[in-house]
Amino acid sequence: MSTLTIEALRSGLVESVHAVSVAVVDTEGTLVAQAGDPGRFTWWRSAAKPFQALPLVQDGAADHYGFGPRELALACGSNSSEPMHRALAASMLRACGCEEHQLACGPHPPLSLAVADEALRAGVVITPRWSNCSGKHAGMLALARHHGWATQGYERAGHPVQERALTEVLRWTSQSRDAVRLGVDGCTAVCFALSLRAMATSYARFGISTEPAARRLREAMVAHPEMVAGTGRPCTDIMTAARGAVVVKVGADGIYCAALPALGLGVALKVEDGDGRCSPPALLSVLRQVAERRGLSLPLPGLGHHEAPVQRTTRGEPVGELRATGALRFH
Amino acid sequence: MSTLTIEALRSGLVESVHAVSVAVVDTEGTLVAQAGDPGRFTWWRSAAKPFQALPLVQDGAADHYGFGPRELALACGSNSSEPMHRALAASMLRACGCEEHQLACGPHPPLSLAVADEALRAGVVITPRWSNCSGKHAGMLALARHHGWATQGYERAGHPVQERALTEVLRWTSQSRDAVRLGVDGCTAVCFALSLRAMATSYARFGISTEPAARRLREAMVAHPEMVAGTGRPCTDIMTAARGAVVVKVGADGIYCAALPALGLGVALKVEDGDGRCSPPALLSVLRQVAERRGLSLPLPGLGHHEAPVQRTTRGEPVGELRATGALRFH
Repeated sequence: MSTLTIEALRSGLVESVHAVSVAVVDTEGTLVAQAGDPGRFTWWRSAAKPFQALPLVQDGAADHYGFGPRELALACGSNSSEPMHRALAASMLRACGCEEHQLACGPHPPLSLAVADEALRAGVVITPRWSNCSGKHAGMLALARHHGWATQGYERAGHPVQERALTEVLRWTSQSRDAVRLGVDGCTAVCFALSLRAMATSYARFGISTEPAARRLREAMVAHPEMVAGTGRPCTDIMTAARGAVVVKVGADGIYCAALPALGLGVALKVEDGDGRCSPPALLSVLRQVAERRGLSLPLPGLGHHEAPVQRTTRGEPVGELRATGALRFH
Repeated sequence: MSTLTIEALRSGLVESVHAVSVAVVDTEGTLVAQAGDPGRFTWWRSAAKPFQALPLVQDGAADHYGFGPRELALACGSNSSEPMHRALAASMLRACGCEEHQLACGPHPPLSLAVADEALRAGVVITPRWSNCSGKHAGMLALARHHGWATQGYERAGHPVQERALTEVLRWTSQSRDAVRLGVDGCTAVCFALSLRAMATSYARFGISTEPAARRLREAMVAHPEMVAGTGRPCTDIMTAARGAVVVKVGADGIYCAALPALGLGVALKVEDGDGRCSPPALLSVLRQVAERRGLSLPLPGLGHHEAPVQRTTRGEPVGELRATGALRFH
């Protein structure tokens, strides 16, 4: 079995080890490369967001409420709760006549440590519009409003909003309803369990799709990577560096998905232990290995701190780093 | 190979998996039970603290500066930066004529989230005396003062303070100097790499030692578990529940060590990926398995939330839990 591992070093010795499962597939779902268990069945978490956002565009809600690329990128993203993110989520809610208390997502410390610290220092009460999923939830409320569906319970399995998302998940992954499991995500909305291979298939397709809704979402993510994550975060930095050559989306618990449109390939990976510090170096290792093997020029400059994050003492001295080791097996 | 695993469940599906290596040994270092790789060579981190604190007592510094059981427990602990911890660290510094700026440990957000939030809300500037290692460092400064050694550089390899700690580490683990590797811990002090089996051996011995210094430290930890960690943290809660039946100390990056004095056994475990949420359920599973196998009554009441921590949504609804699976192999 081919393995991809993230090693955490301290003073030159490997201290902790993280196994990574990877599926790289084409638009037919054929495995092109793999590591660990490419069939790993797990929760897609926030890497499903582009597909959860598709009905918003397809059904005309985005146009109806005037959502442009920035709003669509926020709907596909896991944002850092920076002022620009909070303001945009609030304006999406206003546009569809909803209020913050209708958001089902709960409050949590912002994913950006700087934003979290600042909020605490300022004595701010963190409310649902600070959720990293604010864009997804505002989009779901807009979809419900547009169709005249009840907004109450929009996040739960069985609600038409979630049925629409499920339809898109099944369509893009070519999975039968029985093959996908529904659960509850951290933000209380439905999440989906399926194989890495199925996740990767949807990204391969999403990367080159000519369907207008998919194209709008993809172009929105590429044009506004700052709305997909936030200042200094991997999704934002990778898409900024790639200048359209990749579309990437992280998920909680060690999930990362990507599309490589120039190759017609999709990537899905899971850090088996769920460590979110390890999924960015794992993804960057996979992207570089695939690009090299296929002769694709993919410079991705300025991402060293995401590829090999430095570990420091409490005095700020470097004491080690995370590093990816191991090679994908290509078919 | 026998395996012990911590599984993280979400909506009934295993989302992430954490492998654990375990060594359970007697005072001779003979393996009594194991899982994964009991020979795993890794950094001992803060689970070495009781042995780093031994010279403080042995060399007469603790008596000279009037350190009682509370101070000794703090020196063996990784505290939560609660007011009682900060006050005690400050009084230890005063007792040996040192000031806070002499502490080599850097500031970091308190291990207690509640304390960390409160500090930020209050606009407090976190300083080195807030370090979870404040007791260890204050003890090291006291040792240097007592011997008339330079306080500058006390945390670095080669300084007599660190040489004394190393001597105790080698003596209690029966390791040769060549078998132990020195590195830099998060708090900038020397840390030690050795096998889990060697770590467990020292705890087996520490648990029943009649050497006065070891006994004083052990009894201090058992009498003042609130100084070894803090309110609601595993070390504190486990030793409180065990009423002297176990001595336990956590280390960063998935390390946990314990002594079972009634059985003359020591335990050392490492969550291979370093996830600190998983080491308490792993330790409790090991303690229960060993006690059951050896017919030791070890009730440990009220620890369910450490044995199977519940995962919640941002709305506070339970959505899954961590659980230990797998059995130790007994010899």
